[in-house]
Amino acid sequence: MGERTRVAIVGAGPAGLLLSHLLDRVGVDSIVIDARTREQIETTIRAGILEQGTVEVLHDTGASDRVLTVGGRHDGIELRFDGEGHRIDFAASVGRAVWLYPQHEVLKDLVAARLSAGQDLRFGVTAEAVEDVDSDRPRVLATGPEGERIEIEADVVVGADGSRGVTRAAVTGAHGGFFREYPFAWFGVLCEAAPSAHELIYSNSPEGFALISQRSATVQRMYFQCDPEADPDAYSERELWDILQARVPGTTLNEGPIFQRDVLRFRSFVAHRLRRGRTVLVGDAAHTVPPTGAKGMNLAVADVLLLADALEALLRRGDESGFDAYAERALGRIWKAQHFSWWMTNMLHVAPGASDFDRRRQVGELRSVVESEHGRAFLAEAYTGWPLAR
Amino acid sequence: MGERTRVAIVGAGPAGLLLSHLLDRVGVDSIVIDARTREQIETTIRAGILEQGTVEVLHDTGASDRVLTVGGRHDGIELRFDGEGHRIDFAASVGRAVWLYPQHEVLKDLVAARLSAGQDLRFGVTAEAVEDVDSDRPRVLATGPEGERIEIEADVVVGADGSRGVTRAAVTGAHGGFFREYPFAWFGVLCEAAPSAHELIYSNSPEGFALISQRSATVQRMYFQCDPEADPDAYSERELWDILQARVPGTTLNEGPIFQRDVLRFRSFVAHRLRRGRTVLVGDAAHTVPPTGAKGMNLAVADVLLLADALEALLRRGDESGFDAYAERALGRIWKAQHFSWWMTNMLHVAPGASDFDRRRQVGELRSVVESEHGRAFLAEAYTGWPLAR
Repeated sequence: MGERTRVAIVGAGPAGLLLSHLLDRVGVDSIVIDARTREQIETTIRAGILEQGTVEVLHDTGASDRVLTVGGRHDGIELRFDGEGHRIDFAASVGRAVWLYPQHEVLKDLVAARLSAGQDLRFGVTAEAVEDVDSDRPRVLATGPEGERIEIEADVVVGADGSRGVTRAAVTGAHGGFFREYPFAWFGVLCEAAPSAHELIYSNSPEGFALISQRSATVQRMYFQCDPEADPDAYSERELWDILQARVPGTTLNEGPIFQRDVLRFRSFVAHRLRRGRTVLVGDAAHTVPPTGAKGMNLAVADVLLLADALEALLRRGDESGFDAYAERALGRIWKAQHFSWWMTNMLHVAPGASDFDRRRQVGELRSVVESEHGRAFLAEAYTGWPLAR
Repeated sequence: MGERTRVAIVGAGPAGLLLSHLLDRVGVDSIVIDARTREQIETTIRAGILEQGTVEVLHDTGASDRVLTVGGRHDGIELRFDGEGHRIDFAASVGRAVWLYPQHEVLKDLVAARLSAGQDLRFGVTAEAVEDVDSDRPRVLATGPEGERIEIEADVVVGADGSRGVTRAAVTGAHGGFFREYPFAWFGVLCEAAPSAHELIYSNSPEGFALISQRSATVQRMYFQCDPEADPDAYSERELWDILQARVPGTTLNEGPIFQRDVLRFRSFVAHRLRRGRTVLVGDAAHTVPPTGAKGMNLAVADVLLLADALEALLRRGDESGFDAYAERALGRIWKAQHFSWWMTNMLHVAPGASDFDRRRQVGELRSVVESEHGRAFLAEAYTGWPLAR
């Protein structure tokens, strides 16, 4: 009554879909399930800064052409503090760039590519548990759109179902992981307006952090540091603009109707284990980063590249070494990305209760970075992405 | 009954003595007083890493030849963590170096140079107060070795009397400054032994930080992170060696009799004001840094270079602009050095109560630095010293 596949992938986010795409290219079958509908997946708004390596993977493997035609290359960011802007020139510092291409666009491309390739990709299928985790035939138990029971037996189960999925617990048990919470959150708005800047502005101001980001010629995404308990509906549009404007002195923001608002909590998390037997975690199921470093989706892609190579070796050639080494190899990058996200967060936000010493030290830190070619390159290298293991 | 000079310098540490030396070279008279005896000054043990710019100033202005003949050039340091050593190669990264030359050797050279040049340099003279601070004829009131009252009127009073001196309060008033304390200290030992390493080893170990440093062919200086309330006499020599040895896995320390031990508290401080009227602060009177970045004496030298130029302009040419700008110019470097010292401290020490997340993030940070040529250069540039304003 159960079905069989080589790799059962739980979650049709960027990690799960890209993995099925890369496995297909090397002749490894997979089934991908996701509790959400296709429409939900394609419209969930998430951040959209892609490292150069992520763009190359998406483009060069045929997963997305649009990333280069619709996405916009950004050759730098601005750090603003003490009332002045300082550009980090990625191209000049490290000869690399990032692309602004929202995650739901990546997902549209991946879903379309997988479906046209005949991928067994099932929406509205909710994973309930991973069974026989310690065997070499783990099974995913799930419930279909009509309430029917689904059972998928696989050589390998991949948990790509995010921070609230069931696969993480199957791998980590009660132990969970390494965790850190932050005393602030981001208040994000989407508005109909022309861009206020050509590149992202990360602003450290006495009132708190703000990020001026773009989405398209007519829609913009902006964020400001807020209390984690802030009520998104407690602010008038006027108040939101006044808060944003006060935090980017020197720039006059193009205002327009705000049609979405949300509060994003900041969490850092790394699962205590990334693998148990033949069940393995990737992306948000394995780790969460605060959004300041724009590392979330990029880290998922890095996990998937490692895992795809490991699974090809395991399932096509019976070579277990890459699969056995996956967790340790992935964790090297994960902890560097955790640090980078923590660093960008702490360098740019005003912590509640920060002393005058802390504030001035923070400005000293920002000056150390922007006044040094080595500091700029150190930040640019991490932001545009460390080399991927390919 | 009062005496007159152009510049009254309170404190015969590196800052005060170097300032009198530089002023003499441009024909500006000064009187230097210090509460300590010459012997006390020349034997107080302090850290001894000199930035390349500091060495150049000492050597090129004739203050010290021995810095190059007795001092030892270090072209790198080692960062050790996760059981492995990683060299930061200063020469390869930024083409610069530091010199190991203890502060009391610098002081011996400066005292000898000043006395042979006929400097009015008075030991055992305790400054009690700065009076008429808001006039253009501030006065230093002091007590001589025999209890006699001394009064020195000057165009400018320079507070180079350290963190516990009287000049700081005269400048800052009750306001004090920006302050941060750390939840750990360094336990320092001096021992009779051969060097255990050719360069400094900064070790982040699960048991806490340790620094393996050198002094000479037969005397070594080592430190380990301890509780600020630790009693220096509560440890046997065997215990001290065991603690140190456990924190530098991979290196076998050369042991020998420990003839001095002390606990150094960690504090960060920047005076709220560096100048009030014609009274101005330099060195430790203006700021304190934790020792991890080896910035204390170097920052004092940077202050003094700025101030010497400003005083020459003021007192020789009546140009007040440099004197007016001194505080702001000095503070640029001071806050960068405060950040660097805080960064090195936090990256390398194990904070009491650090979570497993914090510990792993710290290793991710250290990896980010040592695995990146830009990270290594960013650290090397700060450690060997940002360019001096000359």
